[in-house]
Amino acid sequence: SVNPDLASERQAASFSVEKLTALLDGGAEQTRIRRAVVEAVESDPEFSRENQYFQTQNERYESAVRKAVHLQKKMHEMGWTENGPEYKYIYRALSGDVAFLLHRVFMRSISVLGSDKQIAKWIPLATQHKLIGSYAQTELGHGTYLQGLETTAVFDTATQEFILNTPKISAMKWWPGDMGRSATHTVVFAQLYVHGKCYGIHPFIVQIRSLQDHSLCPGITAGDIGPKMNFEHIDNGYLLLKNVRIPRENMLSKFCEVRPDGTYVRQGSQKINYFTMTTVRISLISDEVLTPLMKACTIAIRYSVVRRQSKLKPGEQEAKILDYQTQQEKLLPQLAAAYAFHFINDYLQELFNRGYREIQKKNFDMLPELHALSSGFKAMITQHCTAGVEICLRACGGHGYSLLSGLPSLYTKILASCIYEGENTILLLQAARFLIKCFMAASAGQPVPPSVTYLAAVKHGKCPAKNKLDFLSPDIYTEAYQHVAVRLTGSTAAKLQDLIQSGVKKHDAWNQCTVQLVQAAKAHCHYIAVKNFAETVEKLETTAGIQKIMKHLCDLFALHGIFSNTGAFLHDGYTSAAQMDMVTASYLDLLAVIRKDAVPLVDAFDFTDKSLNSALGSYDGQVYQRLYEWAQKSPTNQMSPAYERYLKPLLHNTLSKL
Amino acid sequence: SVNPDLASERQAASFSVEKLTALLDGGAEQTRIRRAVVEAVESDPEFSRENQYFQTQNERYESAVRKAVHLQKKMHEMGWTENGPEYKYIYRALSGDVAFLLHRVFMRSISVLGSDKQIAKWIPLATQHKLIGSYAQTELGHGTYLQGLETTAVFDTATQEFILNTPKISAMKWWPGDMGRSATHTVVFAQLYVHGKCYGIHPFIVQIRSLQDHSLCPGITAGDIGPKMNFEHIDNGYLLLKNVRIPRENMLSKFCEVRPDGTYVRQGSQKINYFTMTTVRISLISDEVLTPLMKACTIAIRYSVVRRQSKLKPGEQEAKILDYQTQQEKLLPQLAAAYAFHFINDYLQELFNRGYREIQKKNFDMLPELHALSSGFKAMITQHCTAGVEICLRACGGHGYSLLSGLPSLYTKILASCIYEGENTILLLQAARFLIKCFMAASAGQPVPPSVTYLAAVKHGKCPAKNKLDFLSPDIYTEAYQHVAVRLTGSTAAKLQDLIQSGVKKHDAWNQCTVQLVQAAKAHCHYIAVKNFAETVEKLETTAGIQKIMKHLCDLFALHGIFSNTGAFLHDGYTSAAQMDMVTASYLDLLAVIRKDAVPLVDAFDFTDKSLNSALGSYDGQVYQRLYEWAQKSPTNQMSPAYERYLKPLLHNTLSKL
Repeated sequence: SVNPDLASERQAASFSVEKLTALLDGGAEQTRIRRAVVEAVESDPEFSRENQYFQTQNERYESAVRKAVHLQKKMHEMGWTENGPEYKYIYRALSGDVAFLLHRVFMRSISVLGSDKQIAKWIPLATQHKLIGSYAQTELGHGTYLQGLETTAVFDTATQEFILNTPKISAMKWWPGDMGRSATHTVVFAQLYVHGKCYGIHPFIVQIRSLQDHSLCPGITAGDIGPKMNFEHIDNGYLLLKNVRIPRENMLSKFCEVRPDGTYVRQGSQKINYFTMTTVRISLISDEVLTPLMKACTIAIRYSVVRRQSKLKPGEQEAKILDYQTQQEKLLPQLAAAYAFHFINDYLQELFNRGYREIQKKNFDMLPELHALSSGFKAMITQHCTAGVEICLRACGGHGYSLLSGLPSLYTKILASCIYEGENTILLLQAARFLIKCFMAASAGQPVPPSVTYLAAVKHGKCPAKNKLDFLSPDIYTEAYQHVAVRLTGSTAAKLQDLIQSGVKKHDAWNQCTVQLVQAAKAHCHYIAVKNFAETVEKLETTAGIQKIMKHLCDLFALHGIFSNTGAFLHDGYTSAAQMDMVTASYLDLLAVIRKDAVPLVDAFDFTDKSLNSALGSYDGQVYQRLYEWAQKSPTNQMSPAYERYLKPLLHNTLSKL
Repeated sequence: SVNPDLASERQAASFSVEKLTALLDGGAEQTRIRRAVVEAVESDPEFSRENQYFQTQNERYESAVRKAVHLQKKMHEMGWTENGPEYKYIYRALSGDVAFLLHRVFMRSISVLGSDKQIAKWIPLATQHKLIGSYAQTELGHGTYLQGLETTAVFDTATQEFILNTPKISAMKWWPGDMGRSATHTVVFAQLYVHGKCYGIHPFIVQIRSLQDHSLCPGITAGDIGPKMNFEHIDNGYLLLKNVRIPRENMLSKFCEVRPDGTYVRQGSQKINYFTMTTVRISLISDEVLTPLMKACTIAIRYSVVRRQSKLKPGEQEAKILDYQTQQEKLLPQLAAAYAFHFINDYLQELFNRGYREIQKKNFDMLPELHALSSGFKAMITQHCTAGVEICLRACGGHGYSLLSGLPSLYTKILASCIYEGENTILLLQAARFLIKCFMAASAGQPVPPSVTYLAAVKHGKCPAKNKLDFLSPDIYTEAYQHVAVRLTGSTAAKLQDLIQSGVKKHDAWNQCTVQLVQAAKAHCHYIAVKNFAETVEKLETTAGIQKIMKHLCDLFALHGIFSNTGAFLHDGYTSAAQMDMVTASYLDLLAVIRKDAVPLVDAFDFTDKSLNSALGSYDGQVYQRLYEWAQKSPTNQMSPAYERYLKPLLHNTLSKL
């Protein structure tokens, strides 16, 4: 039975939840397929996550391996294939709680970097799981800066082998997933040396564990790097190589090859490979970043209409905490952001598909823009969503802090997305470099890519809003965001030039501008996100109340960004103080409007109870019963040796009854 | 041997680290005592935290109980007493990793709320650990709003007993520390009923476990609430009461008593008790909030001069990451905040000592101000320090995400401080209520407490700064902070009045202003923190370079606050856009200045390697060796059953050599 405090929220929905779900899925047929996959996965006890919050790292690892193995069977059984429409829903349905994800990266790197012969040899073996692959790039002392990697691969013409070594401790491979305990093979990135000359970083296939008994191969030291903030189910590993010999054929050689005599040959264009790396950043957004924020919003908002605390009106019963303005101001902007990022994700996917088609036609013109957008948005979205999940956690008070709420593990996992696949600050600076370049080009009247043409159109006007309702006009706020992005890019470009003209060296000047460059890159992405949300709303069908509620969320997303960053809009007087007060008024008004649809808006994300795995967020809102039931299953409610060992001797001299 | 990249940082110190440590401790003698306690604790293997990051919740609990029991012996052995000078350093030296903290709250509540007779009976038993106490206030459905508690205690005149009950699931006691597995007794807060009339919440001593065999007493259901984000060592518990009878004498009766015939008598003033609750908020700041931020700064800053990544200047070796402006901008403001909050903590302690002396003279005039300051600063400092620890964690990239860095557990623990002892938003609103009241009084020419007299002095001037160096003048920036605090309080008070005058009901009007009220309360606290830092620096001795470096940190703390919140200062034109550019310039300049002393500034916190328990933050900076050594000890490097069970059957059909 549904908690009446939750049920009443659903009756008040201003729009069709089912229609909105279909919109998010990309059509009712997609919804049907997704639900079928979720149903198949969740009804299979092998995939259960029931006791996840009670498990040790070892138990989590073992269960992830078991699930990965079972998944092969399941896919066969269900007729799901890697190219089928179901495939993209499987990982989401498993909540990522499965091993051998790096096995897929191993395969992809061979497909992209390997010769036809290498592909023909290794891909069938990997597909049939006759080996387990990993991907060993990051080292203890080296992350983002690939040129700094220290592992060496020296070609020995006499034996036609490469000899791999870890010359010092900072060169140990560190972090590769699936490598700590599972993998038999890995792709090692190492500095290639031939006849004493260094040719830079290249990829090599290396066997690390025996296929007979899983023991480490000669010269290999490998293991697990130990506990992390999350990812207990993954055996992130370390790898130390000592004179490990591999045949010449094991260097992945689509783009570069070492001939038997030691001649180094470079062939073909690596640009497509470079493109692959940028698409990875986009592809992780949906499952690893958006889904956790959507789950956190679902949990926190459902809980906030069930939890009652203090009295809002004297004489009445205690109020639902979502009726407090401060609670609305915490949660509803996160909800709006979840929708905004869903739509920007669609935009990016489409752009990258277009880019891929162009690149296949050997047209690489879009690459710099795609690289900048993938970098900037990966950083912006992971940052916002991580902060959003944390806000949801804190907004649930003590119960949010219990692992049983599901929120701590969402937070500790999403946090990693700010670091992996490119640390966010570095990515924002890459986006900023593109922006500055385009700004200079645009200022000089040269053509620039579509997403940055606005940089050329520098306007020195003022925001035309006359009352608070004007700030519900997408033109008004989109224009304001655009103005800020241009101003921050322009002023930082000017500072950079001033410094260089005053004699500061180029790299020093760049470093002295980086704090502001990061601000400019964020402003650029925020502008595009707002503009895209507004344009998306414009195109929605007006039936079933969908467009109306999406318009409210778009307004909230935009006004929240202004309200939280007023200085950027006030700085040069584009927005006046009086207008800022109008923004605040409209923003606070919107909270009360959206609050009415808050529960239907999270229901539309369509998470099952099993996928939320939260005592606070279930569809029926029976929070307290579930907390109590789940707590009773905790291993901390088993007998502890602490009593016999410590408490009994302490309470030695007790009274029979006090 | 110290990593040369770290050693060189120490040689460049502009001040005496030892003198600064003594300043932080409150004198060289205090430093000596603290170090002696730390040495005694850390040299005792019973208190070791060596394998903490590898332990399960059960193991952590058992170890905390063991340590608590051992601590009794240790104190006796060392001659440490609860009133001795060593006492306050013990908890810090243990990094809080010890059980029975609620036993102390149990004792304090009896001392404060109990009659002389009750104190005489229970305190000696508790002191000699003939029982283990807890404190059961929070319920599953009820936190901050005490009036909403649902547990009942009905007086039965016939038997002279109270009958305690948990009438429904939301009334279960939930969260009390030490209650899940250890406690034999607890103080239960319940609604008192006599002859059918409810007299509100009162405290009752209830035995929950047998002193003979630790089994649950009749009518008691109790256990552990399961895993949390941190606090694995504490058995936070639940408690369900079913017709539990306790004698009339077990109601704590210093202020209220039920006579044998059922007459309810209220006696004495509870104001001192109310004062006790506010001092708890202040007392937690040092150990639970400041220490974690200082540790996080120490770890992240030491790591940032050892870690090298990418090239800052072409042709040179990879740069220390602390040489990047963006890294400085992440870490150095946290360092400045740690010092700012250390000094505000001193200020608050002194104020509360003064308040205590006044209250003992039956003068309760300071209470409202003390309540507002304790609420506001508890919220402000926990919020800033939690965010600061998170920034430190993220600034260490992948290695910060490893539990072995120590940063994840600092973060997951400090986060709880935003929730316990009063949820932050609620506390800020309590501070705001005081501010609004004082603002109205001051506007009407009535006297107000010292910390808010500035509200009366509304000035409509402009910031007088003419160049970026002017923003290194404490008068300039303190005045700016004051202006913002007055403006936000004044404009919110005006909005509140407008709403009420336009016919909105008082409680609705209040709710519609809460987002802005929170802003006003934060601005007030920020102003006082800046002012206090500036005044503290003013009074420091100028020798040994201490005052100079503290002045830099004070400037950084102030300018970072403006830089991060420009809108508040720009809004009404008090600060112009040109002045804001000066702030930015001075702020960024300061980063480069303080960066030079960053390592000595964290060394001055004087944490031992054992107390940091971090592979990244040790004094010698041997980061990579330590990560590798520690990882090898992880239980995840023991044999896993996953190979035999899942991997071997999967790799069934393998080739002997690929």
